[in-house]
Amino acid sequence: MRCVAGLVLIFFISVSDAKSLESSDKCRALLGDALIKEIASYENARDEIFKYVLEGDFKSKTYDELEKFVDKFGARMSGSQVLEDSIDYMIQLTQEEDLNDITTEELEVPHWIREQEKITMLEPRSKSIAVLGLGRSVSTPPEGITAEVIVFSTFDKLDEASVEDVEGKIVLYDPVYTNYGETVAYRSGAAKAAKKGAVASLVRSIAPFSINSPHTGSQSYDENAPKIPTAAITLEDADLIRRFYDRGERVVLNIKMQSSYETKTSRNTLIDLKGTKNPEKLVIVSGHIDSWDVGQGAMDDGGGLFVSWAAPVILKKLNLRPKRTVRTIFWTAEELGLIGARAYEEKHRNESQNINFIMESDEGTFAPLGLVVSGTQEARCIIGEILKLFESINASALVESDSAGSDISVIINTGVPGASLHNANERYFWFHHTEGDTMNVESPEELDLCTAFWTSLAYIIADISVDIPR
Amino acid sequence: MRCVAGLVLIFFISVSDAKSLESSDKCRALLGDALIKEIASYENARDEIFKYVLEGDFKSKTYDELEKFVDKFGARMSGSQVLEDSIDYMIQLTQEEDLNDITTEELEVPHWIREQEKITMLEPRSKSIAVLGLGRSVSTPPEGITAEVIVFSTFDKLDEASVEDVEGKIVLYDPVYTNYGETVAYRSGAAKAAKKGAVASLVRSIAPFSINSPHTGSQSYDENAPKIPTAAITLEDADLIRRFYDRGERVVLNIKMQSSYETKTSRNTLIDLKGTKNPEKLVIVSGHIDSWDVGQGAMDDGGGLFVSWAAPVILKKLNLRPKRTVRTIFWTAEELGLIGARAYEEKHRNESQNINFIMESDEGTFAPLGLVVSGTQEARCIIGEILKLFESINASALVESDSAGSDISVIINTGVPGASLHNANERYFWFHHTEGDTMNVESPEELDLCTAFWTSLAYIIADISVDIPR
Repeated sequence: MRCVAGLVLIFFISVSDAKSLESSDKCRALLGDALIKEIASYENARDEIFKYVLEGDFKSKTYDELEKFVDKFGARMSGSQVLEDSIDYMIQLTQEEDLNDITTEELEVPHWIREQEKITMLEPRSKSIAVLGLGRSVSTPPEGITAEVIVFSTFDKLDEASVEDVEGKIVLYDPVYTNYGETVAYRSGAAKAAKKGAVASLVRSIAPFSINSPHTGSQSYDENAPKIPTAAITLEDADLIRRFYDRGERVVLNIKMQSSYETKTSRNTLIDLKGTKNPEKLVIVSGHIDSWDVGQGAMDDGGGLFVSWAAPVILKKLNLRPKRTVRTIFWTAEELGLIGARAYEEKHRNESQNINFIMESDEGTFAPLGLVVSGTQEARCIIGEILKLFESINASALVESDSAGSDISVIINTGVPGASLHNANERYFWFHHTEGDTMNVESPEELDLCTAFWTSLAYIIADISVDIPR
Repeated sequence: MRCVAGLVLIFFISVSDAKSLESSDKCRALLGDALIKEIASYENARDEIFKYVLEGDFKSKTYDELEKFVDKFGARMSGSQVLEDSIDYMIQLTQEEDLNDITTEELEVPHWIREQEKITMLEPRSKSIAVLGLGRSVSTPPEGITAEVIVFSTFDKLDEASVEDVEGKIVLYDPVYTNYGETVAYRSGAAKAAKKGAVASLVRSIAPFSINSPHTGSQSYDENAPKIPTAAITLEDADLIRRFYDRGERVVLNIKMQSSYETKTSRNTLIDLKGTKNPEKLVIVSGHIDSWDVGQGAMDDGGGLFVSWAAPVILKKLNLRPKRTVRTIFWTAEELGLIGARAYEEKHRNESQNINFIMESDEGTFAPLGLVVSGTQEARCIIGEILKLFESINASALVESDSAGSDISVIINTGVPGASLHNANERYFWFHHTEGDTMNVESPEELDLCTAFWTSLAYIIADISVDIPR
């Protein structure tokens, strides 16, 4: 998952408030008794899906397949051969489930390769500093950059500083972590620092918790500023440097970073379970197949990939054929800037009216809690009514957002209604973009719940008599 | 803190059971009304100490001094010059508080130096494996050891395996983490593996939680077995290797480890606040000053060091002079095998009857909950009665152990009554012996509570009319 400004909303709108809004009398009036009754009638399909996933042949399959996949490939960086191999693997896995309506769409993607990375504190004492360079960072000279550090907790404080204060120094941003959507802006602070003459910029990892774990992530330069090397360091080391700095002790670092950057070809993958009545209308479920180059990409976004893979597989197996087409998309190159989603949006812009609803899981596949929904009041009322079917597993919360999701926000921003999985992801940002994003974060039981929830939603939304209004 | 078998007890005896035992009628009969009344009368001293630490001039001082100390020195490995410098610093800091009755006692300590460490998985796919060599591990040849891995979850399973199965392989132990005291035995599994012909041994880090964090620690070889290189890997990587292994996929690693080992001189440090009536009788409070070579040693055992340092400083400042001597000890070289404590015990064996009570904090300085106590029923009754004075801060729990503490267990095992700090350390083993043992784990408020609690206990036990019986 990547920086998405709209994500902030999740944290500010209380679930209970949102729920009460959706279940209000206004919704009842908008939907009418017939539709409410129709939605309730999907309890049988829901039960069939849940039984198959929680107790039947699909039990633990999401976890098991995810495990085999991430163990086999490990990290799947945009532009890498391993990512392409993993796409081929997923296509074959899908075909083995007798789903053959599979399309791949080629696009150009960035391939940034992390090579040597090493930061050493030289003053006030010698210390190795754990580091992860940020996506697309330029390299240092081979001997590295050796310079004094100046620390800023906010961009405002950098703005207040003079060029003389900053010139020739390494800027360290150590913002207080409030929430990801807000704090992540500091990961792209290189340009602002460069404009004041900084020779490199570092950021305190965008995370609420750490065991000296650096968190990588994408960043973007500004064409009006020199491109300087930029990296994340751990909460612990950032706080140590801040303490030295506040005590008036000069902190000098040597930063050595080498990387390469080129463009490669990758693919979005589309799997269709064709609708029986309106095959041109799409209900999309999705996750991204690429990952950062650390960890296994099990959480970000292996879980989202596999719950979205599972939906048409299960519907096919149970012979639940909805009226509209259920399309699974494996986005490529999400981490370097939603590259796959942008390409899809551009390519399919003329048919975007056919997207009835678009869903994405890219913020963890812990216990499902409901959906983060973008759409009109009426759209939210329909989704809220459907979510009532999941009260027994505590997954009926509807959280409003003006731009739900990461990849799908590109499409939602064109006016398409959609939703991202709302789940019990309190620890998501502990592991996000670190070496700790592995199978150890995942749970078979929680993945089964997500899969059953996700598949049921896809089926119901693709099958009900009304389109999701815009 | 190091492996101590007796520690296991903490986890098995319920606090409420122990409390009810101590507060039983039996205790009341053993102590008598006069002593119970006398103990209760220390509420004024307790209040004075707590006020000074929580609201007065000492507020946040434990945290602030600990921070300055660990920031200045970082890790303080047994035998290193930085450890000796840190001892000198603590002596000077103590003298600045007008405490001058300071003795250092020299002893020989091991100095194991971690140099290069690198593990690479070669099959079934290429992957870097995070590693921390275990204390005193021998080196590999410069080109490393390349061998297939065989995985054992228990020693019993290794015992059942034939020499043919194990010979020439790398043994990975991946025991289920139950609790530290029980699971840590696998950290010293090198000898058992070597006896079956293994060329190296690895252990899944002894920890309940990880963000791909390896945990180092001491281990011991067996003189009847070849010394083979031995290291800890992360939970995540151990579990990954286990999964490959269980699927029948051959796992091949290259292990490169270089280290050196020599003997150096270090010092235990003794700070006395002489008793007014029985200066020869000692109430000892203690922590160890050395740390592992990763992190800052802020938690293990900077916190214990500083709360023990604070006790005589505060009593002097408040002019609270108990009848017996309060002695603070900074143990050296705990991590490599309680070396400082063993030397102290040997040197002072003839005067051990003078130790009235010995205390140690080496399992975290989170919110204090009470004490883990070793001693007779009568000793426990007295300590339990004293702990009642700390009910308002929820620190009156008495947990029984036959061998409380790590360093002090050496002395407790000779029949001296003692206790270690019982605190809310549920996350202690998340950070233990990792790069994450830094100031970020510590809290000024919790350290203040520990300091006030620790100082009050030292004062009361050193001042009451009765000795702690053996």
